Amino acid sequence: MTIPASHADILESTALVHVATIGPDGKPQNTPVWFGWDGTHVLFSLTTARQKYRNLKAAPDVALSMVDVANAYRYLEIRGTVVEIADDPENAFINSMAKKYLGQDVYPWHQPTDHRVVVKVLPTHTTQMG
Amino acid sequence: MTIPASHADILESTALVHVATIGPDGKPQNTPVWFGWDGTHVLFSLTTARQKYRNLKAAPDVALSMVDVANAYRYLEIRGTVVEIADDPENAFINSMAKKYLGQDVYPWHQPTDHRVVVKVLPTHTTQMG
Repeated sequence: MTIPASHADILESTALVHVATIGPDGKPQNTPVWFGWDGTHVLFSLTTARQKYRNLKAAPDVALSMVDVANAYRYLEIRGTVVEIADDPENAFINSMAKKYLGQDVYPWHQPTDHRVVVKVLPTHTTQMG
Repeated sequence: MTIPASHADILESTALVHVATIGPDGKPQNTPVWFGWDGTHVLFSLTTARQKYRNLKAAPDVALSMVDVANAYRYLEIRGTVVEIADDPENAFINSMAKKYLGQDVYPWHQPTDHRVVVKVLPTHTTQMG
C-alpha cells in the first residue's frame, strides 16, 4: 500500500515508533523503538531475548504509532504484517540506527551475548491526523 | 499495582500516551492521545465514533506506551484493563486535558455532535527502561 503523502515525512524523521504486538495472553503490548524506512517497509531491531520477538514469531501483526517530532498534533499509525525477521550478524542495521538517532557509527550498547534481528513490516493500513 | 517510583514522573508529564487496543480482526491498533493520571488510573478521552471506543467495548485490555518528553531513552509501558467508560457530558475531563496540554480552559475542537466519554484504565503490569 501507499503511505499518504501528507504524512510520509514522518517516516523520514527521527520520531520513535511505538510498536503494539499481541502477547501470549492475547492482550496488547506496546513499547517505543528506533525505526528505519526503506520506501516500502518499516524496519526495527530487536534482540531475540525480547518478549516482543516472541510475540512476533507467534503473531506477525503489528500497529505502529508515530508522532511528528515537530508537531504533536500530527501522527501516523501504520498497521501491518511482519514479512521477515532476519539476522543482523554484523550489526549493520542497528549501527545504521545508531547513526540515524545518535550520530554514531557504532551502536554503543551492544552486548556480546545479544542476538540481534531486523524486523521488516509491510504496511497494510494507515490512519493519520493533522 | 504500584507504578515504579523511578518512572512515576512520566505520569505527571505532558507526554502523549500511545494506546494499543485489539481491533475487530483480532489485530492490534495503536494511536496517541492526551492522558490524565488520578494516582491510580490512567484516564483518556474518546468520542464514541472512534474505532478505539468500539474496540474497548469489545475487549477491555490496553497497553499504554509513553516516553519521557525530556529524555527519549526513558519510557514507561503500562498494561491494564479498562474498568470504566463514563460519559463526560459537561466536557469536564476533556477541558481538563485542554488545560494540561494547551493551557486553555476549554477544549477548542469540540463539535456539538461529539459524544465524549472518559476511559479509566487500571494498571496491571508495567515495563520500563532508562
